[in-house]
Amino acid sequence: MSVLRFDETTCDWVIFAPQRALRPHDGLGRELKEEAAPSEPAKLCPFCPGNERFTPPEIAAVGGSGNWRVRVFANRFPALTIEENPVRQTDAQAFQSMGGCGAHEVIVETPEHQKYLAQQSLEQIETLLRVLQGRSRDLSRDARFQSVVIFKNHGVAAGTSLPHPHWQLIATPVVPRRLRLKHITAMEYFDRTGECLYCAITRQELAAGSRIIAENPHYVAYVPFASRVPFEIRIVPRLHQASFQSVPGERLPTLAQILRQVLAQLYSGLENPAFNLTIDDAPRGDDDKEYFLWHMSIIPRLTTPAGFELGSGMSINTVLSEDAAVFLRRASVAVGA
Amino acid sequence: MSVLRFDETTCDWVIFAPQRALRPHDGLGRELKEEAAPSEPAKLCPFCPGNERFTPPEIAAVGGSGNWRVRVFANRFPALTIEENPVRQTDAQAFQSMGGCGAHEVIVETPEHQKYLAQQSLEQIETLLRVLQGRSRDLSRDARFQSVVIFKNHGVAAGTSLPHPHWQLIATPVVPRRLRLKHITAMEYFDRTGECLYCAITRQELAAGSRIIAENPHYVAYVPFASRVPFEIRIVPRLHQASFQSVPGERLPTLAQILRQVLAQLYSGLENPAFNLTIDDAPRGDDDKEYFLWHMSIIPRLTTPAGFELGSGMSINTVLSEDAAVFLRRASVAVGA
Repeated sequence: MSVLRFDETTCDWVIFAPQRALRPHDGLGRELKEEAAPSEPAKLCPFCPGNERFTPPEIAAVGGSGNWRVRVFANRFPALTIEENPVRQTDAQAFQSMGGCGAHEVIVETPEHQKYLAQQSLEQIETLLRVLQGRSRDLSRDARFQSVVIFKNHGVAAGTSLPHPHWQLIATPVVPRRLRLKHITAMEYFDRTGECLYCAITRQELAAGSRIIAENPHYVAYVPFASRVPFEIRIVPRLHQASFQSVPGERLPTLAQILRQVLAQLYSGLENPAFNLTIDDAPRGDDDKEYFLWHMSIIPRLTTPAGFELGSGMSINTVLSEDAAVFLRRASVAVGA
Repeated sequence: MSVLRFDETTCDWVIFAPQRALRPHDGLGRELKEEAAPSEPAKLCPFCPGNERFTPPEIAAVGGSGNWRVRVFANRFPALTIEENPVRQTDAQAFQSMGGCGAHEVIVETPEHQKYLAQQSLEQIETLLRVLQGRSRDLSRDARFQSVVIFKNHGVAAGTSLPHPHWQLIATPVVPRRLRLKHITAMEYFDRTGECLYCAITRQELAAGSRIIAENPHYVAYVPFASRVPFEIRIVPRLHQASFQSVPGERLPTLAQILRQVLAQLYSGLENPAFNLTIDDAPRGDDDKEYFLWHMSIIPRLTTPAGFELGSGMSINTVLSEDAAVFLRRASVAVGA
């Protein structure tokens, strides 16, 4: 049973999910992670074909249950659950909480335990993107959910606990503060200029050229001017589109193409680094708005944020964005993508 | 040579410090950390007495150069430097940057390589706190610096690269966005209620009692109601005080006492965990304000934030604050603090 608690000092909600402490740990709350060992598929991997009985009930699958290509089920240790009620409760003025209402799903991206996303066929990646979109749309029909956060953790340093390639999504009963602040910033920019902030940035990044690492007819990938960590990558659509949910089917093949190219650049250039990938989307019901552009962020986990970063929220990056872009473009040539 | 770049999408400044990549690394930007080995002081530890020649020039020391008890010098790989000029430059509308002006200092907390802060004498901790206060006051006299962030990293998982116990401080030419937002939140609460938000929270925490882990005549330590990570601890003064810089000398012994007690609880209960400690202070020149209360945050690093946390900014905590407090209070008994 989860509960959310409001932090009056930051206006963030924190999810308390004691049941997640039941995941493998060392007795003091430190999680035990299984290092990805691509050469040796785990016999008992619950995400591998044939082991479907070890997962919670299937929510969706592409390709039929005996022969699936992408498979979705609830997280066994969910941060939030659809059964909970998002009722708010205030014990004292400073202590506001609400039920842990939401959804937490796992999307197994491939039946192949050993194959990274950068090595998948374009068709497989397109199928995966379609499933992610479908789950996000489906959950957004539930009026209790204010946002759907789609993400992928790759590698132990990125916080993954099972090596079989997978994504997750969490539907939250509140708009996370960080996303709300990004939306407000973009909205104020639109009110001032009449233009989408992210589209303005894309235009200027294309004009500068020095931080672009991949492009195709519909998408652009670049290392942001103020990238927070070495080799951070942002993928954006060329034409304005507020929500990932609304990407038309005919634009998914080129999205699959640029995603695979960028991940291949990372894989080859940085020798299969740990990374997190997130999709930043418009708030629920704002998928037709002019002010926000959905985008993917890829955040390699090469360094450890320490006290300065945690206390101030500022990042210290040791690699200039342009240098990172040069490096990744060269890696692109090496991998032949 | 550092530079700061403005992120238009989050209103954060990012520090680019390529010189910090010269720290020991693996050639791909991954930092090499020396695991703390308290049983075996490193012969070449630059923070040990006798090795003073391996550090940048001394800025301050308590006890004389041959017999110091606390010692301060510039970080050898500084994120920011006082020689830089905080001149802003705009290449294109979206690309604003400024010179990497600031200060980045190391405060060696003890001559003893093997002794953790929780094991120090109260007199030594008091001396350390006085030095931190003195450095913060001194740097605040430079009108180019908008904030001074004081922090300590303990253990490899907390991002430290040298095991000899030390603190750091970074003076920044801008108020970090996260701190600015905390100040605004507290200011708005004060405008609405006429009371300091943090003092109101302390009052309610004391009334509830369940999350308090230590108190003495001048300070209170508790696990915040909406703690972001398991066993997060906040130390606050009982009486309103906006700035750590303004803490009167006669209140430092009790601050040393509660800090040592809390760290002993962590050390004993969680078997010497990695943690970050930060001091959140009022903005420069606001040390007499009614709306903000300085406080220490201790953030154990038992879990790895992953894609959901990075994308949404929300935290998932597996240990309820009250349960963490019960655990830490029991550890307190065990350690005899």
